[in-house]
Amino acid sequence: MVSRIRVRHGCCYNSNAWYVLQRMKIAFINVGAPAGGMNAAMRAGVAYCFNRGHVPVAIHNGFAGFARHHDDKPLGAVREFNWLEVDGWASRGGSEIGTNRELPADSGLETIANLIEKYEFDALFLVGGFEAFHAVSQLRKARDEYPSLCIPMVILPATISNNVPGTEYSLGSDTCLNELVNYCDKIKQSASATRRRVFVIETQGGRSGYVATLAALSVGACAVYTPEEGVSLDMLAADVKHLKEVFMKDQGQSRAGRLILINEKASKVYSAKLIADIIREEAHERFESRDSIPGHVQQGGVPSPMDRCRAVRLAIKCMQHLETFGRRAQNKCKHDPHSTVVIGIKGAGVAFTPVEELEKTDTDWKNRRPISSHWASLKDIVDILGGRPPYPKPERNLSGLIAKDTKRGLS
Amino acid sequence: MVSRIRVRHGCCYNSNAWYVLQRMKIAFINVGAPAGGMNAAMRAGVAYCFNRGHVPVAIHNGFAGFARHHDDKPLGAVREFNWLEVDGWASRGGSEIGTNRELPADSGLETIANLIEKYEFDALFLVGGFEAFHAVSQLRKARDEYPSLCIPMVILPATISNNVPGTEYSLGSDTCLNELVNYCDKIKQSASATRRRVFVIETQGGRSGYVATLAALSVGACAVYTPEEGVSLDMLAADVKHLKEVFMKDQGQSRAGRLILINEKASKVYSAKLIADIIREEAHERFESRDSIPGHVQQGGVPSPMDRCRAVRLAIKCMQHLETFGRRAQNKCKHDPHSTVVIGIKGAGVAFTPVEELEKTDTDWKNRRPISSHWASLKDIVDILGGRPPYPKPERNLSGLIAKDTKRGLS
Amino acid sequence: MVSRIRVRHGCCYNSNAWYVLQRMKIAFINVGAPAGGMNAAMRAGVAYCFNRGHVPVAIHNGFAGFARHHDDKPLGAVREFNWLEVDGWASRGGSEIGTNRELPADSGLETIANLIEKYEFDALFLVGGFEAFHAVSQLRKARDEYPSLCIPMVILPATISNNVPGTEYSLGSDTCLNELVNYCDKIKQSASATRRRVFVIETQGGRSGYVATLAALSVGACAVYTPEEGVSLDMLAADVKHLKEVFMKDQGQSRAGRLILINEKASKVYSAKLIADIIREEAHERFESRDSIPGHVQQGGVPSPMDRCRAVRLAIKCMQHLETFGRRAQNKCKHDPHSTVVIGIKGAGVAFTPVEELEKTDTDWKNRRPISSHWASLKDIVDILGGRPPYPKPERNLSGLIAKDTKRGLS
Amino acid sequence: MVSRIRVRHGCCYNSNAWYVLQRMKIAFINVGAPAGGMNAAMRAGVAYCFNRGHVPVAIHNGFAGFARHHDDKPLGAVREFNWLEVDGWASRGGSEIGTNRELPADSGLETIANLIEKYEFDALFLVGGFEAFHAVSQLRKARDEYPSLCIPMVILPATISNNVPGTEYSLGSDTCLNELVNYCDKIKQSASATRRRVFVIETQGGRSGYVATLAALSVGACAVYTPEEGVSLDMLAADVKHLKEVFMKDQGQSRAGRLILINEKASKVYSAKLIADIIREEAHERFESRDSIPGHVQQGGVPSPMDRCRAVRLAIKCMQHLETFGRRAQNKCKHDPHSTVVIGIKGAGVAFTPVEELEKTDTDWKNRRPISSHWASLKDIVDILGGRPPYPKPERNLSGLIAKDTKRGLS
Repeated sequence: MVSRIRVRHGCCYNSNAWYVLQRMKIAFINVGAPAGGMNAAMRAGVAYCFNRGHVPVAIHNGFAGFARHHDDKPLGAVREFNWLEVDGWASRGGSEIGTNRELPADSGLETIANLIEKYEFDALFLVGGFEAFHAVSQLRKARDEYPSLCIPMVILPATISNNVPGTEYSLGSDTCLNELVNYCDKIKQSASATRRRVFVIETQGGRSGYVATLAALSVGACAVYTPEEGVSLDMLAADVKHLKEVFMKDQGQSRAGRLILINEKASKVYSAKLIADIIREEAHERFESRDSIPGHVQQGGVPSPMDRCRAVRLAIKCMQHLETFGRRAQNKCKHDPHSTVVIGIKGAGVAFTPVEELEKTDTDWKNRRPISSHWASLKDIVDILGGRPPYPKPERNLSGLIAKDTKRGLS
Repeated sequence: MVSRIRVRHGCCYNSNAWYVLQRMKIAFINVGAPAGGMNAAMRAGVAYCFNRGHVPVAIHNGFAGFARHHDDKPLGAVREFNWLEVDGWASRGGSEIGTNRELPADSGLETIANLIEKYEFDALFLVGGFEAFHAVSQLRKARDEYPSLCIPMVILPATISNNVPGTEYSLGSDTCLNELVNYCDKIKQSASATRRRVFVIETQGGRSGYVATLAALSVGACAVYTPEEGVSLDMLAADVKHLKEVFMKDQGQSRAGRLILINEKASKVYSAKLIADIIREEAHERFESRDSIPGHVQQGGVPSPMDRCRAVRLAIKCMQHLETFGRRAQNKCKHDPHSTVVIGIKGAGVAFTPVEELEKTDTDWKNRRPISSHWASLKDIVDILGGRPPYPKPERNLSGLIAKDTKRGLS
Repeated sequence: MVSRIRVRHGCCYNSNAWYVLQRMKIAFINVGAPAGGMNAAMRAGVAYCFNRGHVPVAIHNGFAGFARHHDDKPLGAVREFNWLEVDGWASRGGSEIGTNRELPADSGLETIANLIEKYEFDALFLVGGFEAFHAVSQLRKARDEYPSLCIPMVILPATISNNVPGTEYSLGSDTCLNELVNYCDKIKQSASATRRRVFVIETQGGRSGYVATLAALSVGACAVYTPEEGVSLDMLAADVKHLKEVFMKDQGQSRAGRLILINEKASKVYSAKLIADIIREEAHERFESRDSIPGHVQQGGVPSPMDRCRAVRLAIKCMQHLETFGRRAQNKCKHDPHSTVVIGIKGAGVAFTPVEELEKTDTDWKNRRPISSHWASLKDIVDILGGRPPYPKPERNLSGLIAKDTKRGLS
Repeated sequence: MVSRIRVRHGCCYNSNAWYVLQRMKIAFINVGAPAGGMNAAMRAGVAYCFNRGHVPVAIHNGFAGFARHHDDKPLGAVREFNWLEVDGWASRGGSEIGTNRELPADSGLETIANLIEKYEFDALFLVGGFEAFHAVSQLRKARDEYPSLCIPMVILPATISNNVPGTEYSLGSDTCLNELVNYCDKIKQSASATRRRVFVIETQGGRSGYVATLAALSVGACAVYTPEEGVSLDMLAADVKHLKEVFMKDQGQSRAGRLILINEKASKVYSAKLIADIIREEAHERFESRDSIPGHVQQGGVPSPMDRCRAVRLAIKCMQHLETFGRRAQNKCKHDPHSTVVIGIKGAGVAFTPVEELEKTDTDWKNRRPISSHWASLKDIVDILGGRPPYPKPERNLSGLIAKDTKRGLS
């Protein structure tokens, strides 16, 4: 058997009797939107498996594919990886095995649990975004009812939004930044060529202002509006006033285009288009304003080297983590919090954090992002560089009981 | 004087007495939206002028800049070119001297005519889009009233819309295609990774379907909707039906993302967003649909080599054309139709066509495009490759008297 | 049978009895080095075949693959195309079916002829460079001996060198230019940042100076050295003298990097490295000089839209041309010069030219390029823009009898 | 005075009496080869200075420019920054103020010291590579002799080689990786299209294997040769043997191109070309081999967002560090090791490390790199993923006394 693997991959040098006994069947799945580096992570995980004698199996099209198409004819959603195919994935964008946002609870937890039993998976390797985290959280909680879910599961965060608890960087966020900043550079050039024009650019990122803020910093934007801070009318008024002053001082010598970046969920009311309209109206013909929405192009084409390097490094660590559990480790998994973990880059190094711990301490479920944000201070630098004067901060939404009481007139 | 030029440019080897006598003062201006190759054309024209002893002068920010900011302090909109600055422009996108859509009639024809006299321009070199064509048309018609407008004027078409009468290709349309197809490739990859998703992408191009059609051909789109053909409900229904069939046959093996491209002015009613909504509604959960609008990024970053090569080649021919008139050629210009021309690529070669002739024979003023479109047959190839079945063609709008009579119930 | 095709491709609407009778088996092959648009051409040809009921067959890895691996196990080099696979090729660079430079005479003309008989090919569609042209020339000449070669063959030129007789543009040359100019822009930026540095860049292009010249024009090079003109010591001396003058005049204000482009076969003696060394030596510390060789990156990554559009347009015309011969047309082919043609873009339109005619009238066999070069005048523009003073032209090599006599001392 | 600054920059809101007293004159200089993010760092530093009321001054073209061209006419190498010019630098590659490798000791330490006195610089901000580190080391050691050198100096590491002691990442290395991997992807595609071809690609990086290793990881290379490990004949032989096995097993199904990456200084003997030749020779026609050298294109075009973000963040921290010293701080500087520091990213955060400390503890002067390399473990992952079997490690060079004794036959 081992020799067969040698032949298939040509890179299996460490195999020995122990591995034959411990050969694990590991399921690979993508959950959430596509992100740069997903395929590189798959490729590295598969190579590691072949190298060590494990059997890597692809689940195509996420939990939706798993639940409802696993035995489709002629081609089911559950298939062993073929190295000849996977070998070319290092530089591929998108998701070669298909990704999907559906959560196990929507697919049916029982169905998923039964299928894991049926296919005899020893471990689950998830590469994806907040949905992947959410999925494992659901599976973990269902373990009492479905023992087949007591297998080790590891999440390698991959989402352009960089909003998975347990890590400072997710795969795809560097690729997204490259793409987004490339887009912004060109819009800025257009603004520069037509003079006195402000572009309001709407970025993706879900309820995390990470990519908006880093893009704003890279491109030298006047301002960035994030969901963490929100948008208010006073703030817009201050920014329009500032733009007026900037353009008034400019006697035709300045050639720098002006950009404002806004995250797609920074405000329920003020969209990029509305803000651009407000600015245009308030500018009274002194300058122009347009909105621009790059959209799904932010997922990027070819993944960035940094995302690919991290994908490879982290995927291999994930495999090594799953390997520590070995085959048929139901009892162990049931009681070991490290049987469902997120791998993350944190400060100096790489760390595995139990999903259970993250659920409790660092997950803002409502906003689908970590509670802490390591990049928050960068927003101030955007303002300094953009020459943005101090502005009135939007009020925070009330929440919880206080909100209810206030609505009831009880506060 | 000639030696001064030598010093400034370091490439002026042909100067002699004749040139000194015939030294022309040539005004360079950009009109319309930015387009790839504008700066390369400027650079080539300026280099030629220095080489031959002429004085190239930049008019910054189009006719708006000329009319109202020509003598601003500290920096007016009319400035002699400095080679040290211009030398680096070969690869620059946007418009270094600034471009503007304003037409001379809006700036004030008298103002413009007086300024041309004041600055003693012997010729006018316009690089721009349909607005540049329109501008020269206005200036030409005002010659009877303002003799100072009797100077040779040549338009080098530069617009991503490729809609200037007198040429098959305008500068910037190749750059635009590179950018747009790059965008579409990435959206297609996103569609491929998430499976069963159709993206409706809205392209620029004014009322010309050129870039939409060529992009559709390049990217293998299912369909392309152009202003030349229009959009109708029957057509949409046929296309949705076709998409349903395609997705029904697909048993999960197909991985190609599906795209529909629509020009921004293909329909007054059916926007990319509306079409995406209709498709989603009609798909009844069988597949997904999204819209995506790349916007001004289509102007491109760094201009494509093809646009730069054409810019250089055509700019030099333009200079040589202007040179044939020499200085103070009012009388000659008044009567020579070749004193206001468009330079164009037509079939095998390069041709100058008088604006007067184009106005009469090949200008669809209402739609701001040429009457003929050399690329029309490519639309059918898009349909063949996309496997699009025959569909009901949209009815043509009635126009002119027939339209009026019909509304009146007289037809 | 037809219905099967409908199912496989989903785009076969024109099929009827006539087509069933005339269903052709068409072999697709790539010959020469990879070039942008090869795959797009394959895809368009395959789509057309499925649409019309023909059977498109891939020959993998050129004539080498055909002759020696056609029935390899498990996977032979001769395989019917599968639309699910081909559908994703529109934007792929390289050659998905593999390409190879081997000529049929090297593979064995008899072998090739027998295999064409064995596989019952009705037509041959070659996409490739000068080697593809050469290959068809060999096959055509062998028709007397091997009647199975009397099938229609059409060459769609695809080579970054743009050196195939019968066309002004070959697929891949636009992609190559995009890539090469992108490379040169970055080198120029490096030269600009370090000041007073000349880069000598060696381009590909075989014995055709096309890409070198157009790249030089795009990037604003000081000079371009082509195989058509050659390189001589006098010329180098003149150019070094000019560079010295340029740098002497520059008092630190100029920031434009200086480039010289040289085609890889411009000279047998003066390589990019040697020229850079000579310049450095002669500069006597007044400025620096380096060489740089982009190499195979000039084949490009993702093909340019222009190459893809042309690929599609021309591939479909090729299929239509092959279709005019129908099945089993040995007699007709034997006597019709149009049974072996090159499709080309010439001036205004697209033309098929018999290989026989091109062999006689427009092929410089020694230099593997057409005799005429439509782009020759662009070289002068490079010189004007680069401010290059007149320089001593290299002497032409003697050739033919005169050369022999001269060596013998008889002239 | 402050109000003047407000007018010039329009973003100076924090100025007050204290700042007027403490207005510092800060010199900005680039040292070494160009690297992505240099200009973004300049821009951020300049913006901060204007914001706080300091006077930022550009020294053009490094120490060479400073020493010999500081008062050139019409344009000297020492010039106050103009915000209108600097504002557009966020996305510019190269070095707008020019960079140069010359060290102060070569320019003349006395000259440099006198010029610092003459121009009354209160602080020095160096952005550059190992040369910048070396330069500050020289200036620091000369402080006893030249008191004017007792001003605070901070180095922001910027070099594609990522070899500056005191930091894990230098500006430009991410941009370099993007560029290099983009290059390698295309070469790999070429190798894939022509089958059975191995490319040996020579990367830059000085004596640091960082970029070679990360590129190899990103692109899925078979092997990477670094200066840290070296190259030996045994190693080459093992790798050729492995390649033979890989190609022997491949029955035409595999389409992945094979790459070997080698750092430019990995070996004094085995260049990319020589290795490619050896492989070709040993392959005995079983496969092909070529070398490819991207060269200075690795400096990149537009800097990556990550390099730009880091540039901005670190530049502002550098300014704040210089600010802590205030004007005329000779005595303080003389005795405070933090008056000459490198700013670095280390693990979780940003740190300033005194040059004196780095010189002693983490500088491998001979190899011009840090002693420690945080990325060393990645090399093993390259081998695992490439399926590279264990190979004989090259012997280490003897060094120091042992080397001498051995040569003398005394060991």
